[in-house]
Amino acid sequence: MKIALDAMGGDFGPPNLVAGAVMALRDYQQIKKLYLVGDPPKIENELRKHQCNDSRIDIVHSTQVVEMSDRAWTAVRRKKDSSISRAVDLVKRGDADAVVSAGHTGAAVAASMIKLRTLEGIYRPGIAALLPTQFNVFVLIDAGANIDARPEHLLQYGIMGSVYSSHVLRYKRPRVGVISLGEEDVKGNELTKEAFKMLKESSLNFRGNIEGRHLFEDPVEVVVCDGFVGNVILKTSESIAVAIFKWLRQELTRSKIHMVGAYLARKAFRVIKDKTNYEEYGGMPLLGVNGICIIAHGASTPLAIKNALRVAAESIEQQVNPHIVEEIRRYHETTASLEPAVP
Amino acid sequence: MKIALDAMGGDFGPPNLVAGAVMALRDYQQIKKLYLVGDPPKIENELRKHQCNDSRIDIVHSTQVVEMSDRAWTAVRRKKDSSISRAVDLVKRGDADAVVSAGHTGAAVAASMIKLRTLEGIYRPGIAALLPTQFNVFVLIDAGANIDARPEHLLQYGIMGSVYSSHVLRYKRPRVGVISLGEEDVKGNELTKEAFKMLKESSLNFRGNIEGRHLFEDPVEVVVCDGFVGNVILKTSESIAVAIFKWLRQELTRSKIHMVGAYLARKAFRVIKDKTNYEEYGGMPLLGVNGICIIAHGASTPLAIKNALRVAAESIEQQVNPHIVEEIRRYHETTASLEPAVP
Repeated sequence: MKIALDAMGGDFGPPNLVAGAVMALRDYQQIKKLYLVGDPPKIENELRKHQCNDSRIDIVHSTQVVEMSDRAWTAVRRKKDSSISRAVDLVKRGDADAVVSAGHTGAAVAASMIKLRTLEGIYRPGIAALLPTQFNVFVLIDAGANIDARPEHLLQYGIMGSVYSSHVLRYKRPRVGVISLGEEDVKGNELTKEAFKMLKESSLNFRGNIEGRHLFEDPVEVVVCDGFVGNVILKTSESIAVAIFKWLRQELTRSKIHMVGAYLARKAFRVIKDKTNYEEYGGMPLLGVNGICIIAHGASTPLAIKNALRVAAESIEQQVNPHIVEEIRRYHETTASLEPAVP
Repeated sequence: MKIALDAMGGDFGPPNLVAGAVMALRDYQQIKKLYLVGDPPKIENELRKHQCNDSRIDIVHSTQVVEMSDRAWTAVRRKKDSSISRAVDLVKRGDADAVVSAGHTGAAVAASMIKLRTLEGIYRPGIAALLPTQFNVFVLIDAGANIDARPEHLLQYGIMGSVYSSHVLRYKRPRVGVISLGEEDVKGNELTKEAFKMLKESSLNFRGNIEGRHLFEDPVEVVVCDGFVGNVILKTSESIAVAIFKWLRQELTRSKIHMVGAYLARKAFRVIKDKTNYEEYGGMPLLGVNGICIIAHGASTPLAIKNALRVAAESIEQQVNPHIVEEIRRYHETTASLEPAVP
């Protein structure tokens, strides 16, 4: 398999990106070609630091970078030679099977939509984030691709999220919930109320409205919401887990007895810290585009980049796109065949 | 001071509400009158259980209850004799200084808006939730009153949140941030971009866009967002803190050594559990209405109700409403005086 990495995007640029690429090449022999797209001198410099001359690396020259302050669609249209555009081009031409970017999320989404197009029947792609709980791993979709979501987009997120949950995470008949202001059917804003109706009429295992407080205490497998709300949930969740452990560390160092206790219990902390560590998840698939695009965290460490490349490799093996197309087709056939029956 | 408690609303009804009222009367001597609004036999039954015959209690009869499945505005208009409507009436007539409800949030907001009206110059009230971090306590506004927020509402939330933070929480020049999809000024949806401009032009200590991940790791004192997003943040935050501690408990009981460690370190856990326990916060002021309305958690325990009554008592003492009116007036004067200078 062949993967294209945007080697310039992300808060820390080439150092973390190239370090993660080197780690991935060492661990994942199934990667036969890794394109590092960006500024060759900078990339080569990083490779030298790691004394890496792996023949599977192919540096692809690009002269521009989409900055975090750029507007997504404008940047993709104007910066034709940006690293993210060139990386997506490799997938478009069939030279790569997947693209990974830790850069400007909006630009990665826009480049994928413009160059790869959406899958047949899909209106808008959605970012699928995986969040771990004590009880399961749930798919949060959309985690930030689409901030002007319409009800039919949320319905499709429910379908795509269910396909991902069942085919990749192996949940049988994953439960689907839509984020709202209360559990009762009447609660929500115009968007969620309309999406609620569509999800309820679908063949998904729809459990209705869910609230933030159900996410981690009594979770469903697929959590549907618009990209703004999903992004807030994702980043709030990461932030709180990190903050609680930092806070705990501070409290634990206030006394010698606490420190002894913490030492004895250290493995229990480690289990949860590891499971809630976004670096272990690494990358989020952008579902609904005609190709594989993995969105990594802007502040990705080398470990997170390595894991984003692992997610790309797994996505290439799993090939969920044909299943998504099939489920969307089936949905439209079912609702179309139902329509004449509606008075 | 005199407080009206909706004694019927909330997930657990009169038992928790009356138990909390009894606790509050024992601890807060400044409460001279506590109206318990609802079904007298049910309320009296609960009071008997607690062997409470405090002369400061006045039971006010109401025959209806707004159910969680009711639509807020319809319920307030049609159920004239609901416990929340009657409780707000007491404030409207000047018989009570504040109302507390753990019932249908939308109905409490609608009843307050219809009966008490908004403060002079305020377009929409907002719920101010207080969230604790390792570093400060921040005001999250709006936590769920208004799901059709416009930019000028967010601006006013910034002003009201700042007044609350400085006058009640005693932060000097509280920092204000608006929840968005990224820190950069260009990030956001139409609502947040427009609110960003208005907040930047105001005299508030505006720090720009903030992301979920900054909430707990590098917090500002006032977090502005629309009611849907605020409600999701509030409930997600509560859920994750609870979930992490439950998970930790499970991991800690897996081995005897871990259990010994946890026992030694127990006080450190307790500090954080207490600080992140919503029961200790109890109630959230609905800022912007011409009166004092405290919104309690639907799933309030007796302790949470007691603390919601404490928040009501403190709000009566603190009287932030005149300060809000003054700051809103000042804002309008400043922007009006600036207008001719704008080309």
